[in-house]
Amino acid sequence: MNPQTSPLLADLYQFTMLQTYLELEMQETAVFELFVRKLPPGRNFMVAAGLEQVMEFLENLKFTSEELDWLATHFPHHVIDYLAQFRFDGDVHALPEGSIFFPNEPILRVTAKLPQAQLVESRIINLMHFETLIASKAARSVLVAPGKLLVDFGMRRAHGAEAGLLAARASYLAGFSGTATVLAGTLFDIPLFGTMAHSFIQAHSDESDAFEHFARSHPDNAVLLIDTYDTEAAACKVVTLAKKLHADNIFIKGVRLDSGDLAEHARNVRKILNDGGLQHATIFASGNLDEYKLHDLLSVQAPIDGFGIGTALDISIDAPSLDFAYKLQEYAGKPRRKHSEGKATWPGRKQVYRNYGNDRHMESDIVALEDADPQPGEALIQPVMRAGKRIHSPLSLQDIRAQTICNYQRLPAAMFFLDSVHTYSVIISDALKMMADRIDRERIIHDQKIND
Amino acid sequence: MNPQTSPLLADLYQFTMLQTYLELEMQETAVFELFVRKLPPGRNFMVAAGLEQVMEFLENLKFTSEELDWLATHFPHHVIDYLAQFRFDGDVHALPEGSIFFPNEPILRVTAKLPQAQLVESRIINLMHFETLIASKAARSVLVAPGKLLVDFGMRRAHGAEAGLLAARASYLAGFSGTATVLAGTLFDIPLFGTMAHSFIQAHSDESDAFEHFARSHPDNAVLLIDTYDTEAAACKVVTLAKKLHADNIFIKGVRLDSGDLAEHARNVRKILNDGGLQHATIFASGNLDEYKLHDLLSVQAPIDGFGIGTALDISIDAPSLDFAYKLQEYAGKPRRKHSEGKATWPGRKQVYRNYGNDRHMESDIVALEDADPQPGEALIQPVMRAGKRIHSPLSLQDIRAQTICNYQRLPAAMFFLDSVHTYSVIISDALKMMADRIDRERIIHDQKIND
Repeated sequence: MNPQTSPLLADLYQFTMLQTYLELEMQETAVFELFVRKLPPGRNFMVAAGLEQVMEFLENLKFTSEELDWLATHFPHHVIDYLAQFRFDGDVHALPEGSIFFPNEPILRVTAKLPQAQLVESRIINLMHFETLIASKAARSVLVAPGKLLVDFGMRRAHGAEAGLLAARASYLAGFSGTATVLAGTLFDIPLFGTMAHSFIQAHSDESDAFEHFARSHPDNAVLLIDTYDTEAAACKVVTLAKKLHADNIFIKGVRLDSGDLAEHARNVRKILNDGGLQHATIFASGNLDEYKLHDLLSVQAPIDGFGIGTALDISIDAPSLDFAYKLQEYAGKPRRKHSEGKATWPGRKQVYRNYGNDRHMESDIVALEDADPQPGEALIQPVMRAGKRIHSPLSLQDIRAQTICNYQRLPAAMFFLDSVHTYSVIISDALKMMADRIDRERIIHDQKIND
Repeated sequence: MNPQTSPLLADLYQFTMLQTYLELEMQETAVFELFVRKLPPGRNFMVAAGLEQVMEFLENLKFTSEELDWLATHFPHHVIDYLAQFRFDGDVHALPEGSIFFPNEPILRVTAKLPQAQLVESRIINLMHFETLIASKAARSVLVAPGKLLVDFGMRRAHGAEAGLLAARASYLAGFSGTATVLAGTLFDIPLFGTMAHSFIQAHSDESDAFEHFARSHPDNAVLLIDTYDTEAAACKVVTLAKKLHADNIFIKGVRLDSGDLAEHARNVRKILNDGGLQHATIFASGNLDEYKLHDLLSVQAPIDGFGIGTALDISIDAPSLDFAYKLQEYAGKPRRKHSEGKATWPGRKQVYRNYGNDRHMESDIVALEDADPQPGEALIQPVMRAGKRIHSPLSLQDIRAQTICNYQRLPAAMFFLDSVHTYSVIISDALKMMADRIDRERIIHDQKIND
């Protein structure tokens, strides 16, 4: 069973509820929407990502005989018979990947028969939550370090294999330059970057020998790691080596710093390299970096050309989860509303309209009912799947990335700050508020009637 | 390409270094050790997990023709020829899964030809880091809520598919009762638990109808979610329903609370259920729970029988990463030491000896060189793989879980606290310190000679 594609990657209750829905013949159309309840601390906006993986999941969803055999030990025949024929044939509407969004705005809507729309919940959240989390985190480094090479270094401490891969995809989508994760390069056509590990230096008895061996082996692409013992001493060794290699037409591409005071080391190393005639050798930095450290390094003009960002990116370390929810908003033509304490939802099928100021920057969004509740502005939610099939062929990741970078140009200037300083205006339409009130009143009246 | 098994789930530099190692014929034996540099804030100890997945990865490691074709576009023929024949045939030593461990203690050692031992770095860290992270987080809930049903509810917000699965495994290993994730139950034989979603209630026009339909559909196993609208009112509906169902020999197993003041709701609901003759119906709670909230609920004697713990568990929300490192400690028979600022390592092949007090509780550990540095205590590191093959057949997850729970009995009492209160004594042996000093001195002398 392939964890990425298995429909068993779901909570048990999806199957127990499905059993009851089948027994009750509750097969009317359900509408679920995915949204985030609130921004994580420090964030001004979110970047939507993961839709491509959701489309693939839904298009290919089916149960293998092995999966059905296992389910048959837990569920009655009529459930297994239904699942043996299961295909997702519903509709999906969504924000395009790379879109900026805010709390209470639906970013994905599933319209399908109730048992179908319910069964896909767990994996849809799992995919959209993680990629959106990482794209939103990565955007912060992209905004804070314009023009710098930014590379995802985080796979080893990402939470498992898929997290490592999808973090590479989501960060590239959000504007990173590439990743160190080979399989992500292979699967998603993301540019790959890499240098060398400390073990390479340590396996040699002499640091200069290690540098020379690597440079001769990779004459076009040698970035040498210089902090294993003494950073500045190693930079001097690089200068000496470069002169020797010059005769063989081999050029050192750059050096990497991975520890200590990166700004100070970078200044010292830049001077050593420049004095040694290596003005074109770049300085790349890594080592527990995040967007705050990038900001600090750049604000003191540390002469660093690129950054490898690992753990902080791949697990979104300051906000490792989002308050994402996938909620039933309509069933059998009637809008529905959950009313649990602190977790009430806006009912019905919704659209988000975005309005821009005269300077072309985003000014406010309106969340409104999709039909019969027209609002000014750009409608953001688009149909992407009809009757289980994609409406358009997939965009290339490069095209999504280019559009994401364009989207940043429309952000209000205050949103470029790393701390949460700007409360963007998300307006709930009057018709939507009235519908929510009406549903609450009707439920109370219904309960009173039952009790009378 | 399967992300779980593909050797391309590795950092690019593993392949660039491998190329150089092959060209230099650097094929001597390398020894890498995996360890954590420091405890995350609030933690007193770690629980080792992930070894089983590492064993599977190493035993089955090979390149598919598709993977080789892709690599051939980036690396020279001799690298591809080597990789086409690649099998891991090294040795592995490790702490058993479920072992308690501390910073600077190796928990896994790879002894293999340098190119092999290097190539497997990224995925070994990726697997061991995540499962150890989650097992260590889960242990805290297990210690704080003895005798309670604890269920992993976190897959939807886990970081991708594999994180959801391995979080279920690691938390069960650490003493949880089970998981809601069906595929984890299927793959790892973990008990499955589930109730119903709010959408089930919402899809019905009447809450009592929803309860009744579910109970009739699952007569042996109905846990009803009662917080969709008004928790206490719903509990009263459950009592009324139970009387009706009693005639048909259907019994309500329990109820679930998912929002609001859980202690207060639980007390109210317990009284309503007891007054209605449902003394045997259990109360299960969920909703952004973690070990701190469990502690608070239990310290006010909230009458809750079980807990579903989701996001906080599956992403280890207060400490979503560990400072894990996989470092070269020996090459070609010589101990090696990285000396970067703040990141120096202890060289050589090491063993950890654990000593217990008269009360059988753990008292201190000694980290020493494996050979010729004998120490008192229980030697924790064991051989687990020889020449690429496991030495023992895998333990069942149930057996590992039982051993883990036994291990908790040996913890010093202060380590049961949720906050970091106890600094456990990890002693570095004199011989190890002397070896580290000698390596540093020799390197300095070597560098001076080069400069002279």
